[in-house]
Amino acid sequence: MFPGSLGQSLSGRALENGLWSYNALQIRDYAADRHKTVDDTPFGGGAGMVMRPDIIEKALNSFNNPGKLFYMSPRGNALTQKKVQEISTFENLTFLCGRYEGVDQRILDAYEFEELSIGDYVLSGGEPAALIVMDACIRLLPGVMGNEDTAGEESFSNGLLEYPHFTKPDPWIDTKGKTHTVPEILKSGHHANIRAWRERKSLELTRERRPDLLPEK
Amino acid sequence: MFPGSLGQSLSGRALENGLWSYNALQIRDYAADRHKTVDDTPFGGGAGMVMRPDIIEKALNSFNNPGKLFYMSPRGNALTQKKVQEISTFENLTFLCGRYEGVDQRILDAYEFEELSIGDYVLSGGEPAALIVMDACIRLLPGVMGNEDTAGEESFSNGLLEYPHFTKPDPWIDTKGKTHTVPEILKSGHHANIRAWRERKSLELTRERRPDLLPEK
Repeated sequence: MFPGSLGQSLSGRALENGLWSYNALQIRDYAADRHKTVDDTPFGGGAGMVMRPDIIEKALNSFNNPGKLFYMSPRGNALTQKKVQEISTFENLTFLCGRYEGVDQRILDAYEFEELSIGDYVLSGGEPAALIVMDACIRLLPGVMGNEDTAGEESFSNGLLEYPHFTKPDPWIDTKGKTHTVPEILKSGHHANIRAWRERKSLELTRERRPDLLPEK
Repeated sequence: MFPGSLGQSLSGRALENGLWSYNALQIRDYAADRHKTVDDTPFGGGAGMVMRPDIIEKALNSFNNPGKLFYMSPRGNALTQKKVQEISTFENLTFLCGRYEGVDQRILDAYEFEELSIGDYVLSGGEPAALIVMDACIRLLPGVMGNEDTAGEESFSNGLLEYPHFTKPDPWIDTKGKTHTVPEILKSGHHANIRAWRERKSLELTRERRPDLLPEK
């Protein structure tokens, strides 16, 4: 599971360069019995298994400095770019990744885990969600992006969706023989007009797809 | 990048059992020059690079049956559990994963890609996002979950957040010596009361954390 996609490309190079590091801990190793049991049936009945608080605590206590604690859950606070910026400032982070029905509520309360959700959908477990939070945070760490990406002008940086992009060839003739041209204004060299066009497109796209992101009037 | 976290656990076993399969295609292999260039500077200026439509088209045409086309982008339609259910019914799916500033708008228009977003945050690329969509879809495929998970009672299945879970030990005495008990009602054996308690907790949690999910009055 780890580093998974974080071992590749941008975050993979940053990992090699020591800009971030991780320690993936298998909770099963902290089980007390020889069957390595970490979960049990839920009180009150129902399908699925629940992870025991005592086993999770033992795993947690093995860290010298777990830092800020997160539990990945569809019940959690929604991850946003603002939240990503906030999380990326912590020195140490611990992500508790549940499986099946989830974890015992008491461990979350006793250790003040912040429940965090990457979106309104259900995953096979918390691990893919933790990888997403880490990916979003890692690219914001000093020295990670360099010149190959730009954190400045991108979606959400101004609260709106990003305008459309065009590059070569122009025109592009697709394999069905249809011609696709680039908007003339982008080739005009008139920076103020280009800027205005992009702002308008950004606003139009946001209004059409995500009116909830528009500033209140 | 692929199968990444999908090669593990639930989806990993389903992959081995042939319940799903994938074909990860490196767009760079479809570049026309010996430097394997897939992107170029954006028309109109600005930082970052944009992926060329002609190269992406060549890659796309190498599939016999690409099926439904998705472009992973923070500008896209929001992924929800309902959307996951819809996507999981397609026989074939293709996810175009962009890097840096994104891809030329003309390829998205010409091939009618659906832009899809897993959340309001920016990732290093589309690949981690595609892995999330795939993870959420794969667990819904027939035969994947078996008895080890339950798609029935979980977050969003009734439009609300899930109630808290408790399992053994009871009481749990944490390593600081503090005692944490399980709510008495869950040990009462009174199924109707337990059900009512869970419904109330589910509603309370949703009201507190995600009032936007509550049904309109």
